[in-house]
Amino acid sequence: MVSTLFAHLLGDAEMAALMGDEAAISAMLRAEAALSRAQGRLGIIPEDAATAIASAAESLRPDPLGLAAGVARAGITAQPVITALKQAAGDHAGWVHYGATSQDIVDTGLMIQLSQALALLRSRLSGLSDLLGTKAREYADLAIPAHTRFQIAAPTTLGAKIAVWRAPLTRQLQRLDELLPRLLNLSLYGAAGTSAALGPRVSEVRQIMADDLDLAAPDIPWHSTRDLIAELGGWLSLTTGALGKMGADLVLLGQSELAQVTAGTGGASSTMPQKSNPVAAETLVTLARLNAGDLGELHQAMIHAYERDGATLEMEWAVLPAMLERTAASLRIGLDLAQTVRANPDRIAEAFSADRGMMMAEAAGFLLAQDMPRSEALKIVARALSEMQKDQSLTLDAALERIAPGRDWQAELAPESNLGAAPAIARAAGD
Amino acid sequence: MVSTLFAHLLGDAEMAALMGDEAAISAMLRAEAALSRAQGRLGIIPEDAATAIASAAESLRPDPLGLAAGVARAGITAQPVITALKQAAGDHAGWVHYGATSQDIVDTGLMIQLSQALALLRSRLSGLSDLLGTKAREYADLAIPAHTRFQIAAPTTLGAKIAVWRAPLTRQLQRLDELLPRLLNLSLYGAAGTSAALGPRVSEVRQIMADDLDLAAPDIPWHSTRDLIAELGGWLSLTTGALGKMGADLVLLGQSELAQVTAGTGGASSTMPQKSNPVAAETLVTLARLNAGDLGELHQAMIHAYERDGATLEMEWAVLPAMLERTAASLRIGLDLAQTVRANPDRIAEAFSADRGMMMAEAAGFLLAQDMPRSEALKIVARALSEMQKDQSLTLDAALERIAPGRDWQAELAPESNLGAAPAIARAAGD
Amino acid sequence: MVSTLFAHLLGDAEMAALMGDEAAISAMLRAEAALSRAQGRLGIIPEDAATAIASAAESLRPDPLGLAAGVARAGITAQPVITALKQAAGDHAGWVHYGATSQDIVDTGLMIQLSQALALLRSRLSGLSDLLGTKAREYADLAIPAHTRFQIAAPTTLGAKIAVWRAPLTRQLQRLDELLPRLLNLSLYGAAGTSAALGPRVSEVRQIMADDLDLAAPDIPWHSTRDLIAELGGWLSLTTGALGKMGADLVLLGQSELAQVTAGTGGASSTMPQKSNPVAAETLVTLARLNAGDLGELHQAMIHAYERDGATLEMEWAVLPAMLERTAASLRIGLDLAQTVRANPDRIAEAFSADRGMMMAEAAGFLLAQDMPRSEALKIVARALSEMQKDQSLTLDAALERIAPGRDWQAELAPESNLGAAPAIARAAGD
Amino acid sequence: MVSTLFAHLLGDAEMAALMGDEAAISAMLRAEAALSRAQGRLGIIPEDAATAIASAAESLRPDPLGLAAGVARAGITAQPVITALKQAAGDHAGWVHYGATSQDIVDTGLMIQLSQALALLRSRLSGLSDLLGTKAREYADLAIPAHTRFQIAAPTTLGAKIAVWRAPLTRQLQRLDELLPRLLNLSLYGAAGTSAALGPRVSEVRQIMADDLDLAAPDIPWHSTRDLIAELGGWLSLTTGALGKMGADLVLLGQSELAQVTAGTGGASSTMPQKSNPVAAETLVTLARLNAGDLGELHQAMIHAYERDGATLEMEWAVLPAMLERTAASLRIGLDLAQTVRANPDRIAEAFSADRGMMMAEAAGFLLAQDMPRSEALKIVARALSEMQKDQSLTLDAALERIAPGRDWQAELAPESNLGAAPAIARAAGD
Repeated sequence: MVSTLFAHLLGDAEMAALMGDEAAISAMLRAEAALSRAQGRLGIIPEDAATAIASAAESLRPDPLGLAAGVARAGITAQPVITALKQAAGDHAGWVHYGATSQDIVDTGLMIQLSQALALLRSRLSGLSDLLGTKAREYADLAIPAHTRFQIAAPTTLGAKIAVWRAPLTRQLQRLDELLPRLLNLSLYGAAGTSAALGPRVSEVRQIMADDLDLAAPDIPWHSTRDLIAELGGWLSLTTGALGKMGADLVLLGQSELAQVTAGTGGASSTMPQKSNPVAAETLVTLARLNAGDLGELHQAMIHAYERDGATLEMEWAVLPAMLERTAASLRIGLDLAQTVRANPDRIAEAFSADRGMMMAEAAGFLLAQDMPRSEALKIVARALSEMQKDQSLTLDAALERIAPGRDWQAELAPESNLGAAPAIARAAGD
Repeated sequence: MVSTLFAHLLGDAEMAALMGDEAAISAMLRAEAALSRAQGRLGIIPEDAATAIASAAESLRPDPLGLAAGVARAGITAQPVITALKQAAGDHAGWVHYGATSQDIVDTGLMIQLSQALALLRSRLSGLSDLLGTKAREYADLAIPAHTRFQIAAPTTLGAKIAVWRAPLTRQLQRLDELLPRLLNLSLYGAAGTSAALGPRVSEVRQIMADDLDLAAPDIPWHSTRDLIAELGGWLSLTTGALGKMGADLVLLGQSELAQVTAGTGGASSTMPQKSNPVAAETLVTLARLNAGDLGELHQAMIHAYERDGATLEMEWAVLPAMLERTAASLRIGLDLAQTVRANPDRIAEAFSADRGMMMAEAAGFLLAQDMPRSEALKIVARALSEMQKDQSLTLDAALERIAPGRDWQAELAPESNLGAAPAIARAAGD
Repeated sequence: MVSTLFAHLLGDAEMAALMGDEAAISAMLRAEAALSRAQGRLGIIPEDAATAIASAAESLRPDPLGLAAGVARAGITAQPVITALKQAAGDHAGWVHYGATSQDIVDTGLMIQLSQALALLRSRLSGLSDLLGTKAREYADLAIPAHTRFQIAAPTTLGAKIAVWRAPLTRQLQRLDELLPRLLNLSLYGAAGTSAALGPRVSEVRQIMADDLDLAAPDIPWHSTRDLIAELGGWLSLTTGALGKMGADLVLLGQSELAQVTAGTGGASSTMPQKSNPVAAETLVTLARLNAGDLGELHQAMIHAYERDGATLEMEWAVLPAMLERTAASLRIGLDLAQTVRANPDRIAEAFSADRGMMMAEAAGFLLAQDMPRSEALKIVARALSEMQKDQSLTLDAALERIAPGRDWQAELAPESNLGAAPAIARAAGD
Repeated sequence: MVSTLFAHLLGDAEMAALMGDEAAISAMLRAEAALSRAQGRLGIIPEDAATAIASAAESLRPDPLGLAAGVARAGITAQPVITALKQAAGDHAGWVHYGATSQDIVDTGLMIQLSQALALLRSRLSGLSDLLGTKAREYADLAIPAHTRFQIAAPTTLGAKIAVWRAPLTRQLQRLDELLPRLLNLSLYGAAGTSAALGPRVSEVRQIMADDLDLAAPDIPWHSTRDLIAELGGWLSLTTGALGKMGADLVLLGQSELAQVTAGTGGASSTMPQKSNPVAAETLVTLARLNAGDLGELHQAMIHAYERDGATLEMEWAVLPAMLERTAASLRIGLDLAQTVRANPDRIAEAFSADRGMMMAEAAGFLLAQDMPRSEALKIVARALSEMQKDQSLTLDAALERIAPGRDWQAELAPESNLGAAPAIARAAGD
């Protein structure tokens, strides 16, 4: 949970609401309501009890503050909620939570919350993917230096850069499709995971509840095998990691000395009036690093002892909502940045000019090798680079004009002539 | 990489061979050979050069020791390999690595290695899943206490426990099926990811190479978007995490005071002749924790700068092979343990006896509630438990016999009568 | 920040107050007030401005909610606080924050908060160390099995166990003494860390401010070298790690099958009336694991770019307060558990009896070796153990009585006769 | 352990030798020799046995390969070493490892290795600190832009930058002085940590051994409280983190568009002849990130169960040597970079010129405020910046000359006139 002061920087109000205390309590009560209704329908508990419990559960809104001491005592949120529900159910209290265990309710409640949380993330992710597709196509042909290992390498286009940012997002949508049916499960297995107290018709109970809550209902308990949660954490961190890469690029491309691409409205400095800080892009990096680290913690929580292990469950409860909120924040910020991403053609032109065509050295070698052995071609390029070293005003085309005349070097070594598949890569984005 | 001394404890010889230096060099050379062959076939480079290079690549076996200095200089393993190949190619040197970049070769080589490494893991995983299925069915009906939050909860069966260990493994097989077609990609995009120097027919080159190497050939570069690697890391850690849970359970169930289930041959102590240490089960926990932590590092490496970022690639190179080796070790150890897992019926009986039926308290409440309001039933159970507190030789059935006679409490509260769906869960494993 | 629902389980109200939004704002305003007062005293800014600003700063209590949007825009909390202070300072606004940079205020404010936060932790830590010292001495002679690798090894005493829990806490107090004078620094270095706008008397300003705020005032900026923060994180995680070990032991020693030592009041189950869950002890493990993972994140944040790097500072802001709150929670819980830790002599006696003296096997070997070569002695012990294997009612002393009579085996192999230095270790605790 | 191929990139030969298998075996044998000698001297074992064992231990050099299977069986390296020593000791075998436990030998051996490993690190760290001090003073006055949040902020000097890199290293030397006496401990506590089998004179034995091995000899066992190891890990990661910051700066300052500072000899590209990759600087970042992540794993290993927990000890054995090797590599690379760090005055001049004095905006405001209210001064600066926006050839001094004539703006806004304490910070380095 992000504190109020940081709520808009590192947090996300929509996700905070979906994963917050009130939502958690309400989801657990929905789970209890669905359980009672299903048991009532099958005659496992009296129908009037079922109706009364479900109705109490749906109107009950206990204050988190009032439950906190009970949570600390029991080591699980469901327990004071169940106590409150029993009180609200009056004479029917004995039929509340009938045969279930606290963990069933916590986990089913979580899945109800996750259905909504992941719908929010999917919608933002899909919007961002579309938007980046549009931007990729918009800048499909705009030449810009590519950098490898922090050095100018050769030209690409801004559209291709954006298409590359987008590529993992489309894979994330695919992964989400694979993940959701595996993840969104009811839990109803009772104290020891055997469903003993839930009675012989527990599979039917599960199915009715699952239909009610729009979840799946596996017959094998997942109380103590938390791969589903860890897998979800991985998906969240893959999302923020993909956006962290975009953020890192925007931070770098926006440095004062480059300023080739900018996005967002920069943050002002408290003392330097000229500054425009890349706060949003930096925050994408922060969120990615935090989620990456937290993912390690979530995977530690797979090492679960026996049929239920409080020490590892508490880790999940601490880590997962934070990861979800960061992912939502990252996507929201990513959408803002994608909306406002723009090239700075003057600064790009300056970069090309300052490079004096050195980034075309590889291309020049390939051109020369059309007419001579490659080794000879590479020697000519090396000589041209060495003359450029001596004469800092010499460009590569001019140097080659001198050493290896006979081609229209200026045209052939123009960045625009050396974009390879970059425009095509950009145009393919979002097709 | 695991040192020699720890090679059998924390490492795996088969995986170490598949992911070791020699295999990496050989895979990179296979990539270069496939590139030259494809380019030769399309007439991009001379056919005789292609043949000569491919043949040189396939016979070349440079010593890792001799390449190490070159790797440190270039910051990438491919480069000294390419230099060696150029030397071996003699006059054809100019056509070696034509239009490609080092990262293409490193990544394609990695994918060639991963094809084999993941086949090994799949085979072990599938074997382990089958074996646990068999064991689950073997012990489907053997009653044993379930523990929640480290306390005896209610009875389950050993078969159900084993079925629960197995459940994430079957999900891991499914995840691997989803992952592999996304992961196993060729890389061939050239210096700036635009394929500029690879020429206009690069898609065809890729397709031929991909067919040759049994990889996919996406048109968009993945030089700088490393979600595929991070996703693989997640899968590896999910595997070791699932086995870490099994290991933790075996450590706990094998404690001197429980000794209800054992597996493996225990390690001897240097000074205590009576001891049998659960080394293998402990190691499953170790491997899971190490992979969980390393997964966090691998996700940090998604925050990749520009078109290629040495700092993050080097992280992958350090972390991924270690995670693969640990996963292989974990599965090998898991197979050993699954093979030898066995119940200790005497000790289980002792545990049931020492518990005096307290773990049937929930069940007793449900039985009583058949004839009276639940609240009254729970009061009777509480009274029985309180009398058991006073008289430490009293069992729950005897206490209830006194307080609420009229049922065959001994039979109804026998663990075997209260297994719920545990036997069915166990029998369903592996169907 | 822990959500309300989990505030008493995973959080700590006192630390949450010290590190919360209001406290952070108030500390930043104290930093601004101290800066203005120091600059006023030296005549760098007009004295009346200094007085007015300091007084405005000390009475201003801006609502975090109202600042959150400004924090998101600026990427730093200080900025909207400074804006609010300028408004409050009216005509003197131009002298507010004179020559400083936002990071100076954030970092100085943090140090003001940390002075109090660490005083709280020191006090709890010292109290816990004393309490464990008392308990160690109380149980100095109570024999109990030691376990190595989850197997009964040989006897120790509960007091020695407690002394071992305590040992790292005394080291933590020593480490805190070393850490504090290094950590608790003012920050006042201006935009580029050169103090240029702070004027030539900046060292004097710093010294006056530092005296005012009870901090040190190094002349070299620490804007971008965050080892102090990472070191603090390490200390926090060492604290929770030490308590995590105590928690793990209490969880294990309290298992139903052992129940040799208990502490705290167990959590009740929602469905199993007999259960008493070790919630507090489990939570010590949880808090330790979360801090361990977060420490890795905090160390990632040392890789700070240039003179100030928002992406890594934001990581600190997210991670450090959470680690502090967890440490406070862990110490509070540790105190509760230490207060209530108690042996269960019946169950300890049962464990000794069930072991049948096997844990004395090493001791028996040493006794026999007084009269014969060690190899022979070990053979006799092995034979005794093997007979005990066959006859499950045979004890080691009885077996040796038969095989190697002539000693008072029963007395010599009594746990109480084989405690070594355990009582002394326990008694030394807290001397 | 780093594989051969990466040995010079990510590894360090000297540290690999100190922490490798052979060194570990040899250190364990030294521990056994010292134990036997001490016990012989006190008459606890026969003197001739002591002499024979010590001499056997010192000449024994078992092959790691031959021990690996034994390590896997026992789950600890000491055990096959002890077996080998017993064989070598012939008739005296019974007195080998007398009263000790495997963990004593592993831990004492580790400390013997760490004495040397930390001496190596101290020597490199101290050398690097001195070298950076020299370089800081060499470049004390060289003006260069400072960047905050990736934007040019205001001028500093290269010397001040280097002094900032150096500052945490001097703190690291101080921390090492505090750490070493706490860390370098003998372990000799026997099976259950009670020293029972070691006899009543164990404190004397420890003291003699400790003097022999130049270690401390606490009376309380540290078998299961691993804060010392976790603290060491923290120190290692603080070292690599500090160098990671220097590496990150060098990567950024060396970007093609900046090239203001370079260090090391760049790595060549396989395809781009003009490139010079900052491999060494990138590697500093890599090593820092890997150690940061591994530190999280090492702190997980503090959660140690009972008197000895194989699962967590195995984590230490996997992680600690890798962290040490990375730290040694980082310091070696840092020394190389510090040796060759050099300014590129032309590119720095270009950066100042391209900035057109905007980074002096804060300074201009302070100058103007000497003669007018600050608010008015800031308005004038804002107007100047806005005119510079319109006229991209206008410099700040020229703009102010127009708007607020009457000062020698060119001289007063020269970077050299606005370095604040930067030269002094640089000169103070290493005094």
